[in-house]
Amino acid sequence: MSSEELAARGQTTAAQVRKDLSHFGSFGKRGLGYPVDELRARLRRILGIDRTWNVGLVGAGRIGLALFEYPAFRARGFDCVAIFDSDPEKIGRELGGVVVQDPSAFEEAVRALGIELIVLAVPAEAAQEMAQRGVDAGVRGILNFAPIRLNVPPRVPVEDVNLVMELEALSFQISKDEPDA
Amino acid sequence: MSSEELAARGQTTAAQVRKDLSHFGSFGKRGLGYPVDELRARLRRILGIDRTWNVGLVGAGRIGLALFEYPAFRARGFDCVAIFDSDPEKIGRELGGVVVQDPSAFEEAVRALGIELIVLAVPAEAAQEMAQRGVDAGVRGILNFAPIRLNVPPRVPVEDVNLVMELEALSFQISKDEPDA
Repeated sequence: MSSEELAARGQTTAAQVRKDLSHFGSFGKRGLGYPVDELRARLRRILGIDRTWNVGLVGAGRIGLALFEYPAFRARGFDCVAIFDSDPEKIGRELGGVVVQDPSAFEEAVRALGIELIVLAVPAEAAQEMAQRGVDAGVRGILNFAPIRLNVPPRVPVEDVNLVMELEALSFQISKDEPDA
Repeated sequence: MSSEELAARGQTTAAQVRKDLSHFGSFGKRGLGYPVDELRARLRRILGIDRTWNVGLVGAGRIGLALFEYPAFRARGFDCVAIFDSDPEKIGRELGGVVVQDPSAFEEAVRALGIELIVLAVPAEAAQEMAQRGVDAGVRGILNFAPIRLNVPPRVPVEDVNLVMELEALSFQISKDEPDA
């Protein structure tokens, strides 16, 4: 497949496709395009999705459960193997085959299940503690929905999702084109 | 308040605070710090959150409803005034005082309610159509959870939230430090 065809599928340009891929080595042959199966396999390896990741969900609110039920996660190898919530109403309930546990069981579960990624979907005041406990137990990466900056070692990547800030980015972009009132 | 104090609260550095603010004009006086009330008011104006934004939610799944119920949205002036979903089971139900409507009522509601922002939380195959219909009816900005790149006029900002890509960003960062298998 040519970089032009890849670009059309990805809604970008052929030059961008070639430039992006060049960051990761040599793919394809000039004039022959890219061998699709090999390209897919190598990209999956680069992205770290040529394997399964055991994911722990910390906080069984709507956001957390939305993630949990999203079929694309499992399809990409992210397997939610444990759920923790401090709400006594939720503890012991089964969600999609996974029983909600008390956070006191967190570290033991991280170790026993080999949880490497956690999704932190708890209130801001609980997020730092759970992040630290996770890291201490062996967690290697954190998807953080709490509106605080987590303090964890540099070796542990954190991706922050702050939906209020996303909306504010929109209101900022719209407002900056308007004359001051 | 000094830039040092602001930096400590924002978990950044005083130099960064001064640099960031300098992009938007002159704030505070050297040696005197920043007048907090005035700074807050000006930042709210710059971000476009010195007013209320009427927001329409397109797609009443878990993600959409999580946003809808998140108190921080209303606190920042984002007011969800309408919900649309094509599921007959959901149409007519009231969620937080807002009745879920059939998408056929979308354009009329956008105009009647002055909806300027929409949250698109629908499957990929429905997202482009709803985006276009929204823009045609007067929508000015889109928070997009659908995993496609929306094609809208450049004057309409789009913020994309792709949670699979956030997890892949983590698995990439963790994997790139590992030797190849």
